[in-house]
Amino acid sequence: MESDNDELEGYKGSTKKILEDKGVKTWDVVSVEASKKKFEGILLPRNKFDKEGYIDLKLKNGYNVGVRISSQSKFKVLGHEKGEYKLPEKKVKVDRNKPSITLLGTGGTVASRLDYVTGGVIPAFTPAELFSAVPELEEIANIETIVKYEIFSEDVKPKHWKELATAVENAARRGKDGVVIGHGTDTMSYSAAMLSFMLPKLSIPVVFVGSQRSSDRPSSDAALNLIHAMQVAAHGDFAESVICMMGSINHSHAYLHKGTVVRKMHSSTRHTFRTIGTRPFGKVKDNHLEIFWDNYRHRGECEKTVADTKIEEKVALLYTYPAIDPSMISFLADQGYKGLVLAGTGLGHTPHDLFPTLKGAIDGGMSVVMTVQTLWGYTGMNVYETGREELAMGIIDGKNMLPEVAYAKLMWVLGHETDQARIHTQMETNLQGEILSGEPPSGYQVFQGE
Amino acid sequence: MESDNDELEGYKGSTKKILEDKGVKTWDVVSVEASKKKFEGILLPRNKFDKEGYIDLKLKNGYNVGVRISSQSKFKVLGHEKGEYKLPEKKVKVDRNKPSITLLGTGGTVASRLDYVTGGVIPAFTPAELFSAVPELEEIANIETIVKYEIFSEDVKPKHWKELATAVENAARRGKDGVVIGHGTDTMSYSAAMLSFMLPKLSIPVVFVGSQRSSDRPSSDAALNLIHAMQVAAHGDFAESVICMMGSINHSHAYLHKGTVVRKMHSSTRHTFRTIGTRPFGKVKDNHLEIFWDNYRHRGECEKTVADTKIEEKVALLYTYPAIDPSMISFLADQGYKGLVLAGTGLGHTPHDLFPTLKGAIDGGMSVVMTVQTLWGYTGMNVYETGREELAMGIIDGKNMLPEVAYAKLMWVLGHETDQARIHTQMETNLQGEILSGEPPSGYQVFQGE
Repeated sequence: MESDNDELEGYKGSTKKILEDKGVKTWDVVSVEASKKKFEGILLPRNKFDKEGYIDLKLKNGYNVGVRISSQSKFKVLGHEKGEYKLPEKKVKVDRNKPSITLLGTGGTVASRLDYVTGGVIPAFTPAELFSAVPELEEIANIETIVKYEIFSEDVKPKHWKELATAVENAARRGKDGVVIGHGTDTMSYSAAMLSFMLPKLSIPVVFVGSQRSSDRPSSDAALNLIHAMQVAAHGDFAESVICMMGSINHSHAYLHKGTVVRKMHSSTRHTFRTIGTRPFGKVKDNHLEIFWDNYRHRGECEKTVADTKIEEKVALLYTYPAIDPSMISFLADQGYKGLVLAGTGLGHTPHDLFPTLKGAIDGGMSVVMTVQTLWGYTGMNVYETGREELAMGIIDGKNMLPEVAYAKLMWVLGHETDQARIHTQMETNLQGEILSGEPPSGYQVFQGE
Repeated sequence: MESDNDELEGYKGSTKKILEDKGVKTWDVVSVEASKKKFEGILLPRNKFDKEGYIDLKLKNGYNVGVRISSQSKFKVLGHEKGEYKLPEKKVKVDRNKPSITLLGTGGTVASRLDYVTGGVIPAFTPAELFSAVPELEEIANIETIVKYEIFSEDVKPKHWKELATAVENAARRGKDGVVIGHGTDTMSYSAAMLSFMLPKLSIPVVFVGSQRSSDRPSSDAALNLIHAMQVAAHGDFAESVICMMGSINHSHAYLHKGTVVRKMHSSTRHTFRTIGTRPFGKVKDNHLEIFWDNYRHRGECEKTVADTKIEEKVALLYTYPAIDPSMISFLADQGYKGLVLAGTGLGHTPHDLFPTLKGAIDGGMSVVMTVQTLWGYTGMNVYETGREELAMGIIDGKNMLPEVAYAKLMWVLGHETDQARIHTQMETNLQGEILSGEPPSGYQVFQGE
């Protein structure tokens, strides 16, 4: 790792060298001719997540932009922002006619760029700075910002889920009208699912939001996603844990996805999140939220938000495959695992040579839940002999729960139940919309609006 | 398990009881009034895979039908087919003007029902019986039928792949124009991928076909799928391992999917197979094959089909998740695993707390390949610090290989290479169309025809 250079914070390698050669430092007001365009703004520090080859500028209109530079780029230093950079602060007035929102941050290291919601950078802004950067937000709500923790989302652990659920309970108790959670997209759906279970009596909207920053498009979808998320958290008449992200490649609208039926389905596109097996929960377009579902918890339907964060952490998730080693199951049992979610083939099958170790693990007290690795569709454990034998040995039918959602649910259920029959019943019961009772004809297709 | 009753072979529980009460035996010619319709045909034995509540009748036109019965159903016995049942055999003439196809069977136990291609029942028919059941087949090709093995497809193991690849080589050597493989759909895509690698110099089409039998629709897509598969194996100008299955819910056409970019994406619908990240390989409609791809191996482009079946079986596949236990990696290393495919989050990330054990396993000689659990999209291992650290410790970039395809490929590559640098190069090189060099705009959507 390179040592930090405060004058070019976060810049590395050839990019750093170019800036040094040009005599440019962070917080300089510069004009840049690069990528066949001319930009003028303040050179912002970058953070350690960022890809080389780009600089970040804060433009006069308050927005940040990423600019690809090379040694051919022309720089002119016009001035310098002294000392610690301050966004041109807007005076924040609390408007009692507007809803109040808590914005929870979960990751990232520096507060230089709105661009990087993925790392949860935003919450390190004060509300005043946030409103300067995204003026639209001030029109929507009074916002408080709390940084809960700062990690890469691939490093999310059960303790983080507990902190978030508790923070939501606190926000509701303090009279907030909604909670927005800035979260990396890698594990956003796992967290949105777990919070659905940990907040069984939710009274306000909980809206996860992030940014799909792709290396070739440094200017990001972060601001728009945040505006959408704030709108629905402030004004939406629902009390569910949902994900709010782009619904199309052209940024025309956002979809809301209920946390228990959503999965990240593309590694880089901005409309990566998809509701599996049914329609999205809702759509945000032109400041208007349309909820597509018929049955959901309305705002205030539960009187009080209570976080119920007891979970069993010794739960594993295995997608099966042709030569999967039965010893992996016995290893998990030996390690004291209490739960195992299998994503089987077809209607929920494992190879027969796993049966003896699976049966041994179940007889030893492990709860094993079967889901389908096809992701779409239901198990059908009564259709073929294999499924019937699995049921007979005590495997729990995961129906059409997504494997990752069943993983979160099994943790939560095992945190509350020890009786095998009760565990079975809870896992096979729809608790938070994770088991769909019917599949619409369009449930398998890309949802193309309505 | 119930003991077999030869007179009602394969019937169980209440269904068996109803038939006993009505005095009906298998091979009886019966008329049945059930499900508000009247049927006349021969009562066929069922197989052990079948769901209770249905009987199978062979109608006079040669087709089989499943009929839901209850104690209210009316039966009349009209006669009995004595001894071992024979389909009304058509005389099979070898027509030297027609292509010759080898139909390989891989599973199933009884030959009573065309309905159940999933289990590979068809090949237990003689060609004469097959032509009686699906008369259209005789128009397409001269067909030989070979039962390679009889298993549930969830029990497919490396030895089965070797047998199939060798059988394809043999068929080509004997001058066959194509091979159709009846295969259960559970693991069809794993087998189609592996045969792509095991048959690097293929001279004729290899077409996997199966049936998505759902419990509520006993009459199946098997006959139509088989007709489509035979057509393309006999007449298609390509020499690739492909899957041929329904392309829509209404049976209007079939899609061909190249074995290295296809995945089963719905547990029960008939158009379950989807080409991921690009368009299907081709489409079969009204006896016409249209190939959508530009680059592929044409029939006869390779002079001779050679099966290259050396593989390393000690390869595992793990989808990562938030609290995945690092000890699972070290356990695999201790068990002598030579390869591991990870399906990471986002652009190809694992939690950082896996890094020490991953590094230890790699330093100990294990080849670890990173793919994305989003299934759609590429890894982006240079975008964030996590990915760069993974590359630095020696993790191989799986690009946009599907996790299950990377699993098959890693087995095959490790069967041929021991040098780490060579393994890296082979895994990151597109060998059989498994790494797509670009993603069309529609690559993420359900392909809706063209």
